Amino acid sequence: MSRTLVELLRDGLPDEAILTDPDVTSSYAHDMASFCEAGEPAVVVLPRTVEQVQHVMRTATELRVPVVPQGARTGLSGAANASDGCIVLSLVKMDRILEISPVDRIAVVEPGVVNAALSRAVGEHGLYYPPDPSSWETCTIGGNIGTASGGLCCVKYGVTAEYVLGLDVVLADGRLMSTGRRTAKGVAGYDLTRLFVGSEGSLGIVVRAVLALKPEPPQQLVLAAEFPSAQAACDAVCKIMEGGHVPSLLELMDRTTVKAVNALAQMGLPETTEALLLAAFDTPDPAADLAAVGALCEAAGATQVVPAEDAAESEMLLQARRLSLTALEAIKGSTMIDDVCVPRSKLAEMLEGVERIGEKYDLTVGVCAHAGDGNTHPTVCFDAADPDEGRRARESFDEIMALGLELGGTITGEHGVGVLKKEWLAREIGPVGVEMQQAVKAAFDPHSLLNPGKLF
Amino acid sequence: MSRTLVELLRDGLPDEAILTDPDVTSSYAHDMASFCEAGEPAVVVLPRTVEQVQHVMRTATELRVPVVPQGARTGLSGAANASDGCIVLSLVKMDRILEISPVDRIAVVEPGVVNAALSRAVGEHGLYYPPDPSSWETCTIGGNIGTASGGLCCVKYGVTAEYVLGLDVVLADGRLMSTGRRTAKGVAGYDLTRLFVGSEGSLGIVVRAVLALKPEPPQQLVLAAEFPSAQAACDAVCKIMEGGHVPSLLELMDRTTVKAVNALAQMGLPETTEALLLAAFDTPDPAADLAAVGALCEAAGATQVVPAEDAAESEMLLQARRLSLTALEAIKGSTMIDDVCVPRSKLAEMLEGVERIGEKYDLTVGVCAHAGDGNTHPTVCFDAADPDEGRRARESFDEIMALGLELGGTITGEHGVGVLKKEWLAREIGPVGVEMQQAVKAAFDPHSLLNPGKLF
Repeated sequence: MSRTLVELLRDGLPDEAILTDPDVTSSYAHDMASFCEAGEPAVVVLPRTVEQVQHVMRTATELRVPVVPQGARTGLSGAANASDGCIVLSLVKMDRILEISPVDRIAVVEPGVVNAALSRAVGEHGLYYPPDPSSWETCTIGGNIGTASGGLCCVKYGVTAEYVLGLDVVLADGRLMSTGRRTAKGVAGYDLTRLFVGSEGSLGIVVRAVLALKPEPPQQLVLAAEFPSAQAACDAVCKIMEGGHVPSLLELMDRTTVKAVNALAQMGLPETTEALLLAAFDTPDPAADLAAVGALCEAAGATQVVPAEDAAESEMLLQARRLSLTALEAIKGSTMIDDVCVPRSKLAEMLEGVERIGEKYDLTVGVCAHAGDGNTHPTVCFDAADPDEGRRARESFDEIMALGLELGGTITGEHGVGVLKKEWLAREIGPVGVEMQQAVKAAFDPHSLLNPGKLF
Repeated sequence: MSRTLVELLRDGLPDEAILTDPDVTSSYAHDMASFCEAGEPAVVVLPRTVEQVQHVMRTATELRVPVVPQGARTGLSGAANASDGCIVLSLVKMDRILEISPVDRIAVVEPGVVNAALSRAVGEHGLYYPPDPSSWETCTIGGNIGTASGGLCCVKYGVTAEYVLGLDVVLADGRLMSTGRRTAKGVAGYDLTRLFVGSEGSLGIVVRAVLALKPEPPQQLVLAAEFPSAQAACDAVCKIMEGGHVPSLLELMDRTTVKAVNALAQMGLPETTEALLLAAFDTPDPAADLAAVGALCEAAGATQVVPAEDAAESEMLLQARRLSLTALEAIKGSTMIDDVCVPRSKLAEMLEGVERIGEKYDLTVGVCAHAGDGNTHPTVCFDAADPDEGRRARESFDEIMALGLELGGTITGEHGVGVLKKEWLAREIGPVGVEMQQAVKAAFDPHSLLNPGKLF
């Protein structure tokens, strides 16, 4: 069967687009999530054209072989993990930016374009593609679409979903479908575009995307505020948002995270603080906005409020925030990264609860958060070589999601469900929700070939 | 059958919630679109609770009676039109605002809440619900969700879809499903929320919505610019958007529209202009932004650029724009209102083409447009008593949509498909698109009871 599969694939793909050496294909087995099953792919294909993707899907449907689409495999939920005997369909070679239009404020791209490459290319036209996951230097737009990625910008600019206007999608049977539009508005029929965004490759293969762009805002200026407790920092977040401010980022790092970042990269962040809040504005007068927000931080109990002096200092603070997950990983070698988003009015309760859970399981849990969105990343640090610690890590990881649901939140703000949280998806959306989601899946993928075992 | 239906409905609805008098029910037969078939409802129900809606849907499924959901029937595509023997399910009595949270920047509402009522209520908390269709004083949030309504604000703030975070939906069989979230972000499973937005009541009955709010922006200031040709005005639009400006509205009225508004309401708009462009900013320094945009208008050939002196003058200009469709209707008694959205770089070609089509069919076609979005409303004016004029109106209406598709646009930017454009939906999205959309429809509504005959 495996040989037949590869032979058939060769009918529509050049030799260099087909990898079968197990030493090589095994490197495509999984993304960056811990504790997620991953199988051995039968073959990895690296198409360069829409037609080649169509050929792969026609072949897969003919032989009923599952297909796992992949971008840069920087995902954090196992959504890109291979299953045994599957075709791994890597889109990284389809990496052309096909169009950038300043008048229409759109870009048309292939799925393998790296987020940072797009950001830089549109920047040359005075345009801005906001979604900026921490992995933006390596992750692909196709992967961003698959997981509806967020980032630091979301509190002002929203997530990937809000920037996808239209898609070309290869369906499970190899047919090509266009969804959406290249216009600013459009309501012709059901919004299938949005259905594909965040579907983790389980409904079809995105081969082209029309993305909305914004005009490039002024350079943002960042402020750092130190708080004597996480609760005080959360209180400041609520005051800022209730006050009608629109920061371009509003991020929180707890003491554990601050120390981890200092240990990793000697950033010189203040280690005595219990919580560091970073706020930024990319408005015409960011210093004035930062002054107003600084005053709110002080009213909430900030012990120190330090506006960055210039763009370089601002960038250094952002760099510290972006290093958080990597730095936390260095503590014990392994992490499980939660992605619970709660209503921001519940942020303080969330952080208190996470602290309790860490104590209960005797584990270090560092928290960094897109605080303005209520999107927390409680990160459970553990030693993978210690089975008991691994068990406790998994249990605390789960308990953090339960807490998020209790507080009216969601198990995933931006990382997706993948393999890691599929039991939790059912808890969040309930039996009717699962049934209707599966009905949608069946409508697009009647033979369950597209990324099977993910989401449900 | 009709008696049995009403008897069964009475099991779960109070008497006053059931209307059967044909003189009364016939007033629920149609929305505000011309040329759309509308049948006679068997009964009109006006539930006040989720449970009552569930009872209606269970009864409808048991008896296989079609259900047509309705809001204020201000729609412009016949999407709310009754079919013979149907249950009209009017949601207007479910009109409670259940929650407004300034910290979480959300409102939770029932579907019958009138758009303006919500806008005013959130305004008291310093918050802003942007979507503002021209009918905002009477249309309902449920109707806005059904058609994914737009309005004047979209060029900066986007359409209704971007403000719907979560929904409670009664499914065809009467089960209740919750979609989405009340958090700022969330990617747990497929985005069914967005699938319902713009689905014209064909997938389920929205009974509750969590809406995102923005902080109330500063009062906007409007500028009016007169142009010697529609093309020059479109050129200005492109220059403004290419220049990175973010106006809070950017509207165009052609000469026909300007004269019609003057005739209806003695607004004193300049009748010698070929195209009037309205631009507004709700930024901290709107006068400075208007000055920059005014200069771009002059560079594009504007003969006169007049910034409003204050909020009252700004509001008067907006009022003129909002009256456009009504004013055009007064010309010949009837109109067919197109809703073609093109990439804004094609706006000038679109307007030229519309003028040609008007000449070809010897009809007055006034154009008002959300120009910043490329969303045009070419409005064909005709005498409904003259069959030949009626025929020519329909043909020119269609030819305008064909032109929009040719230019890479969509047949509907914000009014929806309904009955009026269902053949055109197929032309826009193609056979694979139609097949997949129908598969989605079948997944939610296996007996085709929800607003049958709409969209497809």
